[in-house]
Amino acid sequence: MTKKRVLTGITTTGTPHLGNYVGAIRPAIEASRNDDDESFYFMADYHALIKCTDPKAVQQSSKEIAATWLALGLDTDNAVFYRQSDVPEITELCWILTSLTAKGLMNRAHAYKAAVQANVEEEVDADKGVFMGLYSYPILMAADILMFNGTHIPVGRDQVQHIEMARDIAQRFNHLYGETFVLPEAVVDDHLAVLSGLDGRKMSKSYGNTIPLFLPPKKLQKHINKIVTNLLEPGEPKEVEGSTVFEIWEAFANEEQVQYMRDQYANGIAWGQAKKELCALIDGQISEARERYERLMENGEEIEQLLQQGGEKARAYARPLLAEVRRKVGIGSIT
Amino acid sequence: MTKKRVLTGITTTGTPHLGNYVGAIRPAIEASRNDDDESFYFMADYHALIKCTDPKAVQQSSKEIAATWLALGLDTDNAVFYRQSDVPEITELCWILTSLTAKGLMNRAHAYKAAVQANVEEEVDADKGVFMGLYSYPILMAADILMFNGTHIPVGRDQVQHIEMARDIAQRFNHLYGETFVLPEAVVDDHLAVLSGLDGRKMSKSYGNTIPLFLPPKKLQKHINKIVTNLLEPGEPKEVEGSTVFEIWEAFANEEQVQYMRDQYANGIAWGQAKKELCALIDGQISEARERYERLMENGEEIEQLLQQGGEKARAYARPLLAEVRRKVGIGSIT
Repeated sequence: MTKKRVLTGITTTGTPHLGNYVGAIRPAIEASRNDDDESFYFMADYHALIKCTDPKAVQQSSKEIAATWLALGLDTDNAVFYRQSDVPEITELCWILTSLTAKGLMNRAHAYKAAVQANVEEEVDADKGVFMGLYSYPILMAADILMFNGTHIPVGRDQVQHIEMARDIAQRFNHLYGETFVLPEAVVDDHLAVLSGLDGRKMSKSYGNTIPLFLPPKKLQKHINKIVTNLLEPGEPKEVEGSTVFEIWEAFANEEQVQYMRDQYANGIAWGQAKKELCALIDGQISEARERYERLMENGEEIEQLLQQGGEKARAYARPLLAEVRRKVGIGSIT
Repeated sequence: MTKKRVLTGITTTGTPHLGNYVGAIRPAIEASRNDDDESFYFMADYHALIKCTDPKAVQQSSKEIAATWLALGLDTDNAVFYRQSDVPEITELCWILTSLTAKGLMNRAHAYKAAVQANVEEEVDADKGVFMGLYSYPILMAADILMFNGTHIPVGRDQVQHIEMARDIAQRFNHLYGETFVLPEAVVDDHLAVLSGLDGRKMSKSYGNTIPLFLPPKKLQKHINKIVTNLLEPGEPKEVEGSTVFEIWEAFANEEQVQYMRDQYANGIAWGQAKKELCALIDGQISEARERYERLMENGEEIEQLLQQGGEKARAYARPLLAEVRRKVGIGSIT
């Protein structure tokens, strides 16, 4: 295998926000245009079930996320863009890998350990409120990756452990049944922008401090106006360090524009004015995509069709590999 | 649903032996002829992976078990006879159920607790040598049952807990997403014969004390000759209580034949003679089926074809139910 095969999963909970866009979607879409690599992007709706038992929310989020990626220009000819649940081979592989995964490996997963720690501190049963989805999902994630022999997996630092687990599981399979799976590598880009949210903490759905990506301009301005600033008056020079408004500006601006706003801060730009210019900057960059997004959201059929085409492309990889796996473990045809 | 739907799984490890025949296969095949019930029988090859990482052994066992059930006259028109791995809907449902199953439920499973207990006694890590297959298989078993809305599940006492877990999981799904699954009931028949093996312990593959069901007559006699007896000489009256030879005789004989052998014991039949008559009794009952078995084993294609037909019948039930489940949890189509 000479080409890199880059595989990215997007959990289908919530509405894409500026933080997702800057930290994940924008760089991934740029990467999808790189002909040197093979790119796989999937909507991880089976993973969403672990976090969300509201079917309408899962479905709505799937639609919004698909529309977002498509509106922003994901190259679905060059990349394979699919919905996890359109590839049933993945859950079948997941069970096969479950059979041979050591339970001790799952015990070491950060997310599970954090849940146990919280319970221990509250002096309740260690597994209270822990579901098997949370506990087992590193195996599903291994299946997601190994099903396509993904070689390079872009993740945040907190997900590196899961890639190592996928490697462990792949190695055990290869050891028991012969070379089958490529060992995936985690790709961590520490230079990716992490945006702060309205309250200055990391922008995250769980903090309720996000600015949705495709708001109509007026609503976008309203959200931006809520970004916490200090009490300095117009005319008083302002620090760019620690300013969320400046941080978001930087994530959208070119060099010249960054310098411009730096000067404005030094010259004592009013917060209201800075927020107005920020809104205009962002809107200028996303308004075309927003129009496409709105059109797609009104016409779910088009999204659905693209996803199903992507699913068929994905299954063209998954079917033969699963057939090989089944044969190697002794499942299926007896002849 | 007025009809009972009886669902029986057969793990595909090992070669069917007299104990399997008397305790499980014979009564199940009789039940398959009962038009009042719907009968589902499946070869649990995904479960086999938990116990066996030798692909040839899993495949060979699948073939032998399928040939055994077919040779003994399983009514594949009346019953649905299929291989678990031919119904990928099952592993997909398994993941969906995994998401919502409490980890605490799995912690209470007997098989897992026994493994932990053994480790604790050896003062090693509680989860040493425990794989996620062993830990999670009650969820797969719940998926096996709920996928077909099985109502009555014939099991041994040691499996009752798993049926209760399947009920718990079904109830939680119904509670979260609306009435979907029928709650299955365990059916325990304490009158089923449990045969002793060559060494007097329960006949079981794990003790290596079995008499395979379809041995050619000479080999059958050889095996029967190895059944442990006491040192009483020919002419000395013998007790039927505690005699493995008599116990197996009873499992195959009619009332008259039971009385006959009881008299023979009282009259001091020689062990060699009793074993000869036992072999003849069994052989008389299985020789026709053995011929069919041998023919089927030589022609794997015929077995494979019947299994695939059964798989299609099974999927005709599984597909619409999984579609309903997917819709209810918010997975799949966004339109």
